[in-house]
Amino acid sequence: MSTPPTVALAMLPMLNAELMTEAHWSRLESLCVVPDREPLTTFFEPRALDVLSRTEILLTGWGCPMIDAAVLDQAPRLRAVVHAAGTVKQHMDPICWQRGIAVTAAAAANAVPVAEYTLAAILLANKKILRLHQRYREAREFRWWPMEFPGLGNYRKVVGIVGASYVGRKVIELLRPFDFEIVVYDPFLDSAAASALNVRQLEFDELLRQSDVVSLHAPALPETHHLIDRRRLALMRDGATLINTARGWIIDHAALEDELRSGRIDAIIDTTEPEILPADSPLYDLPNVFLTPHIAGSMGTETQRMADLALDEVERFVNGQPFRYAIRENDLARIA
Amino acid sequence: MSTPPTVALAMLPMLNAELMTEAHWSRLESLCVVPDREPLTTFFEPRALDVLSRTEILLTGWGCPMIDAAVLDQAPRLRAVVHAAGTVKQHMDPICWQRGIAVTAAAAANAVPVAEYTLAAILLANKKILRLHQRYREAREFRWWPMEFPGLGNYRKVVGIVGASYVGRKVIELLRPFDFEIVVYDPFLDSAAASALNVRQLEFDELLRQSDVVSLHAPALPETHHLIDRRRLALMRDGATLINTARGWIIDHAALEDELRSGRIDAIIDTTEPEILPADSPLYDLPNVFLTPHIAGSMGTETQRMADLALDEVERFVNGQPFRYAIRENDLARIA
Repeated sequence: MSTPPTVALAMLPMLNAELMTEAHWSRLESLCVVPDREPLTTFFEPRALDVLSRTEILLTGWGCPMIDAAVLDQAPRLRAVVHAAGTVKQHMDPICWQRGIAVTAAAAANAVPVAEYTLAAILLANKKILRLHQRYREAREFRWWPMEFPGLGNYRKVVGIVGASYVGRKVIELLRPFDFEIVVYDPFLDSAAASALNVRQLEFDELLRQSDVVSLHAPALPETHHLIDRRRLALMRDGATLINTARGWIIDHAALEDELRSGRIDAIIDTTEPEILPADSPLYDLPNVFLTPHIAGSMGTETQRMADLALDEVERFVNGQPFRYAIRENDLARIA
Repeated sequence: MSTPPTVALAMLPMLNAELMTEAHWSRLESLCVVPDREPLTTFFEPRALDVLSRTEILLTGWGCPMIDAAVLDQAPRLRAVVHAAGTVKQHMDPICWQRGIAVTAAAAANAVPVAEYTLAAILLANKKILRLHQRYREAREFRWWPMEFPGLGNYRKVVGIVGASYVGRKVIELLRPFDFEIVVYDPFLDSAAASALNVRQLEFDELLRQSDVVSLHAPALPETHHLIDRRRLALMRDGATLINTARGWIIDHAALEDELRSGRIDAIIDTTEPEILPADSPLYDLPNVFLTPHIAGSMGTETQRMADLALDEVERFVNGQPFRYAIRENDLARIA
């Protein structure tokens, strides 16, 4: 039997404490040599250079510093980067692929909590539950509540999914048990794939016109910058809800603020541009906006699901199998 | 072919307008004779007495007046009451069963939106999404949010279901795709039924000790009055969430207010005692409470699902088949 490969971790230590339970450490140490459990937070100090010189697999997470040519030069034995989070773009230079490093990430695991947040948001949105919570707090008396928002309810509504990404597909799967019609816009989705998902494909503008809820699951790419602009916001139905758990980048926020100030549509927003909104942003206080601070992705116990997937990938690598969620260089142009 | 039976409606007219779409009217009129589409709101005025004298099936809804011996005396041809809502207790005297009236209700259809609300509430609760929404609004700056609520997340949490009612069972079904352990307390659930539901049964106190979220789905009965009292609230885990979409009757509200004021647990509450809380109730304003005005049940488009079920039952009756959701007199002691 050959010597197990040597693994090192690179991520924020505070994240690492949540990500890796003792069971995860036991599993990793049964698969690999782990010279140092303490994750690297920079690659250019003596401990890091020593660890890197021996590392064959780098297990990365949020806060991993950029892996570029200078880092690779210090890591001559490195063969694989396993990212225990969603996107590798912030910390991996394309040189990694050119030097033949195998790359994988836990985007499929990170998609789960985002889809769960989205499902909850859709169920709240159609029924105007967040709005009725506020109205009741203001009124403190009996009202015939359906009259406040005619047509509310989670029965026979149209849910529009923008982007059949990992998250978009997981949302579609979670929506199955409910009485919704699901429509999808994704320029990369062919009709066979749409049939397999059992969804109706629509052009983007038409999806906006027909949907009671529009949920964004597109990556941040040059082509998706301000995909939702003033004209497209105006296409949304009166009383419809826009959900953004993807990236603020996708929405023109000046146009969004104007549309939301008018009160014509509602929004449930987890990601904004900038990431932390200025203190005077109307999105904090408008009654038709539910704003959260980029928490839909993996948090707390949910990071352990990403560690599960990452260790599955490490195990495949150790056993000489290809990664299940391999990322190739030419995937970068269309993924998050 | 025999003459179709004559049907009349009795419910609040404002509800009726939401419940019965034109498609529902067409279907009803293909099955029955409908002398008057206008629902009865009282049984003792000339139009009502005339309608009642001919009615064989009464299609009832919210706001239907009490059907007692005096009403039955005016309705000699009445053979069935089909209730297009959840519970028949408010408007049906036991005399109806003693006189051989067949009774059915749309509790199974009304369970769907309650279970949907509950599912959304559970997904929000484990991840502290409602709390983080508030914290972000207050802070308006970056925080390492998982630190605010250690252990948050929708991964490997324990969800405790109190009552395997229609709603409780529907919640259990909707929870299947998620990474939860489901534990159930229901004194009427035998072990074979628990196995079929694939849940672990616990005694009530033990369920409260082990659950991250406790959701109440028990009916309002003499035995369930203040089932959740001071002692039982104290058994709940620190940071756990109590969800009540059943009836305020089940919880001692003085004890609940004290526990929630302490901030030790969170609550998502749709039903209270009294039904509309006094304007100075702390439940309106506490940061760890999300309060809605008894809206989890069917509202707006969701009432049409109850009409669908009611018309299915009318069709079975017209075809000489037994009701699918027949309610017998001795069911009344254990159902909502």
